[in-house]
Amino acid sequence: MDALSGLTRQLGFDFRTGSLLSQALTHRSYSANNNERLEFLGDSVLNCVVANLLYERFPLLPEGDLSRLRAYLVKESSLSGIATSLGLGDHIRLGEGELKSGGWRRPSILADALEAIIGAVFLDAGFAAAEQMVRQLYAPLLDNLDPKSIGKDPKTLLQEYLQGRRIALPEYVLVATEGEAHCQVFRVECRIPALKVSAQGVGGSRRAAEQQAAELAYQKASI
Amino acid sequence: MDALSGLTRQLGFDFRTGSLLSQALTHRSYSANNNERLEFLGDSVLNCVVANLLYERFPLLPEGDLSRLRAYLVKESSLSGIATSLGLGDHIRLGEGELKSGGWRRPSILADALEAIIGAVFLDAGFAAAEQMVRQLYAPLLDNLDPKSIGKDPKTLLQEYLQGRRIALPEYVLVATEGEAHCQVFRVECRIPALKVSAQGVGGSRRAAEQQAAELAYQKASI
Repeated sequence: MDALSGLTRQLGFDFRTGSLLSQALTHRSYSANNNERLEFLGDSVLNCVVANLLYERFPLLPEGDLSRLRAYLVKESSLSGIATSLGLGDHIRLGEGELKSGGWRRPSILADALEAIIGAVFLDAGFAAAEQMVRQLYAPLLDNLDPKSIGKDPKTLLQEYLQGRRIALPEYVLVATEGEAHCQVFRVECRIPALKVSAQGVGGSRRAAEQQAAELAYQKASI
Repeated sequence: MDALSGLTRQLGFDFRTGSLLSQALTHRSYSANNNERLEFLGDSVLNCVVANLLYERFPLLPEGDLSRLRAYLVKESSLSGIATSLGLGDHIRLGEGELKSGGWRRPSILADALEAIIGAVFLDAGFAAAEQMVRQLYAPLLDNLDPKSIGKDPKTLLQEYLQGRRIALPEYVLVATEGEAHCQVFRVECRIPALKVSAQGVGGSRRAAEQQAAELAYQKASI
């Protein structure tokens, strides 16, 4: 367990039952005694802790906004970001195939292992201990959380930005469709005449292209 | 609060902050200070408690089966069933419109109020108190939980039943289509020749009709 002592220090938690931590770090490609059940448990503990954190922190936010913020905080990329900052990839036990294909840096494997660790802490020491660890792991993300923008798509953000300034809404124009029918690429331009701003986005659907165009236009408009 | 004393007795929980219970029982049609945020919190507490219950109770069940069982236990109809057995509808505060249209017996309103109560208990006394209440409320459902069948659709259940007995799989035959194009009704017959069983189902889609036919055939076949 020596190799894990650095990790437990970072987690701020000492396991009474060390085998729980090993299990949380065991991918299904390595052993039948893996982290999948712990991940199931940890996912629900995480959701509950984060719900409570948000409930406390934003006493006036309606339920829909709380849900949106929670979805942002518990999504795979948020979790794998935290896992990466903990260097979790170095400790995950993977089968040979996964090891060779770089599974230790795959976001889904990292996120699952972190959820499994949260489940393991919950089993080892109860809800309060898991809550304390999640609060600590999420502190950097929570400090930078802007409830107004997080989780909203670029078109919505741009629209709200313009409405707040009483500027006419943007126009989205399909400027090109490339490729064959089964793998078309769309190019859309987002135009905000009042600001003399325009930007183009591309994507596998018209909607995706619009979102990218909106994001770039928003960056230009809000400089 | 006198009217609520019967309810708190059934819940097995005395609120220190009585206003939390009132808020949990307040529908958005009645007041801006309603149960929506508590429901958000309670939903996640419930998910977590039920995940833990299932994790303990079924130590060998893989993650996918645990998820399926949890989905069954926390779905609206399970929650509204528990809420009905508590007589929750009598205590929910509804706006006039909802009251007139019988909102107090609507499954979604009942389920939301029960989740909000779980959230209120969590806020009032912590995770362990909420867990204890959920365990008590769910005891009847848990006692009758069959991990093999719960959450599976009738076609799957019937197929597994027949496979387990090495009986040839059923045949589904569309026997009639009634009604006009925009509101067609399908009638499908499920046939199990080896058992001399057949049953018909109807539905707004072919799939729905098949499921109903499978359910009836399963009932006949497993007598």
